[in-house]
Amino acid sequence: SGSCLLRDSQVRVMENMVTNAEKYFGQFCSLLAAYTRKMARLRDKADQLVKQLIDFANTENPELQATLRNFAEDLAKVQDYRQAEVERLEIKVVNPLKFYGAQIKQTRAEIKKFKHIQNNEMKQLEKLEKLRQKSPSDRRMIVQAETSVQRASVDASRTTRQLEETIVGFQEQKLKDLQKIFSDFVTIEMVFHAKAVEVYSSAFQTLENYDLEQDLEDFRAKMHGVYGHYSARPFTDTNTSSSVPWALTSQNTQSTIQSQRKEEDAGEDDSMEEDMVEDLRGQGQGQGL
Amino acid sequence: SGSCLLRDSQVRVMENMVTNAEKYFGQFCSLLAAYTRKMARLRDKADQLVKQLIDFANTENPELQATLRNFAEDLAKVQDYRQAEVERLEIKVVNPLKFYGAQIKQTRAEIKKFKHIQNNEMKQLEKLEKLRQKSPSDRRMIVQAETSVQRASVDASRTTRQLEETIVGFQEQKLKDLQKIFSDFVTIEMVFHAKAVEVYSSAFQTLENYDLEQDLEDFRAKMHGVYGHYSARPFTDTNTSSSVPWALTSQNTQSTIQSQRKEEDAGEDDSMEEDMVEDLRGQGQGQGL
Repeated sequence: SGSCLLRDSQVRVMENMVTNAEKYFGQFCSLLAAYTRKMARLRDKADQLVKQLIDFANTENPELQATLRNFAEDLAKVQDYRQAEVERLEIKVVNPLKFYGAQIKQTRAEIKKFKHIQNNEMKQLEKLEKLRQKSPSDRRMIVQAETSVQRASVDASRTTRQLEETIVGFQEQKLKDLQKIFSDFVTIEMVFHAKAVEVYSSAFQTLENYDLEQDLEDFRAKMHGVYGHYSARPFTDTNTSSSVPWALTSQNTQSTIQSQRKEEDAGEDDSMEEDMVEDLRGQGQGQGL
Repeated sequence: SGSCLLRDSQVRVMENMVTNAEKYFGQFCSLLAAYTRKMARLRDKADQLVKQLIDFANTENPELQATLRNFAEDLAKVQDYRQAEVERLEIKVVNPLKFYGAQIKQTRAEIKKFKHIQNNEMKQLEKLEKLRQKSPSDRRMIVQAETSVQRASVDASRTTRQLEETIVGFQEQKLKDLQKIFSDFVTIEMVFHAKAVEVYSSAFQTLENYDLEQDLEDFRAKMHGVYGHYSARPFTDTNTSSSVPWALTSQNTQSTIQSQRKEEDAGEDDSMEEDMVEDLRGQGQGQGL
């Protein structure tokens, strides 16, 4: 019958709609979950970079240390926003998509029920046809079968209306979820990127404000200030020679090369050397190493 | 001797500076390379999402299709900017860090040379000491050894000045690279995030402008417009029954249920049914499926 054909089409259309939505929403879900995971991995790498920057800052002179720490703090702030982004994506994008998948399963169950009722109508019809062909004179059986057909037909009709409501409801839910989920995705991304611009602008200023030339000049002055004394004398200062194993009898050597010595107070040089080494270590290495 | 001790400290300080820079710059390099790779993975996932969104759009009605396509295009635009970000990070951040690693190896080679020259001075000194202890009367040999010591000492002294320059040069390079590389990193990130905010703002508008209620109303009207005719009659329309195998003899059935039929023109209903199914397919599935 035509109404059965129609209902059959209706169910097929509905099934196709559900299958299609299941397919694409499922892919949106797994892709956005993967996207969120990759975002979390990105955050992890940046967090490690922050840690290394702070470790490195501790091995540098105070000015550079301050610059690197401020920069690292800004970088860490971006990761905090990224973490918030990851959490929001999970709550407002990935989870609703998962939930949508669960709803689709429920819709599938409803369709199955409709199909069952439809099949029942068809079975009753077939039964009636067979009766009419095989026992056209058995009025009692035929009337009974006709009643069953009518009952099944009423069921199927009611089901058609229900299916119609289900289709509209399904479409409504799909469109609303689509708009809500992707709007939320865009909002979450937008907030994150806007915050990142803000923080990176501050980080850029931090790096711009670092006075590299002054830092280098200080370093150069320190190097020349200390090594400048030594550069004119090849080797000297026997006061500390006892600490050098291979020069235990350097008193003899001293006599040979004493003429080359230009400085008077070797002890002072020693303390300067220590200071310089201390300074260099402070700059090149830090106390931690 | 003191100058040897100093040069020894100098070399050690230099070695520590290089080791420290190598360690941290190496970590910055591998972390930023990993960061860039994760960013590329993120782009891949978003690209896949764009593809699925377009595929899905093709299964939807024209208005939703246009909305989804515009949204997908914006999402693709963000990925283009992300791709540019990935390329810039490689060129302006990861590669310079790799290059810095190569420079450090060169500095290590220089330090090795300095150490060799220092060791030579020590060897000559030790030789002279031994001669003075073993053959104190061999003036010719002692004078020769003293000349060697002096020559090695002059070499070592020149080397000390070179090492000093190397230290300053190394520090300069390190600070400049540090400022340049991280400023470039921040600039690249800032540009990307700013572009992303711009594009996502447009994407947000696209999603906001989508008239979901109108779309749903159209859908509802279509559903009621077609099914509305049928909801009042359980089963009907024998004109199409010949296409249904189980209803080959439905003419008989028709007589039984004809009273329930409310509509006059079944042929018109058939064409309406086809239109509706076509429409639903257009919305639920598209031509591709």
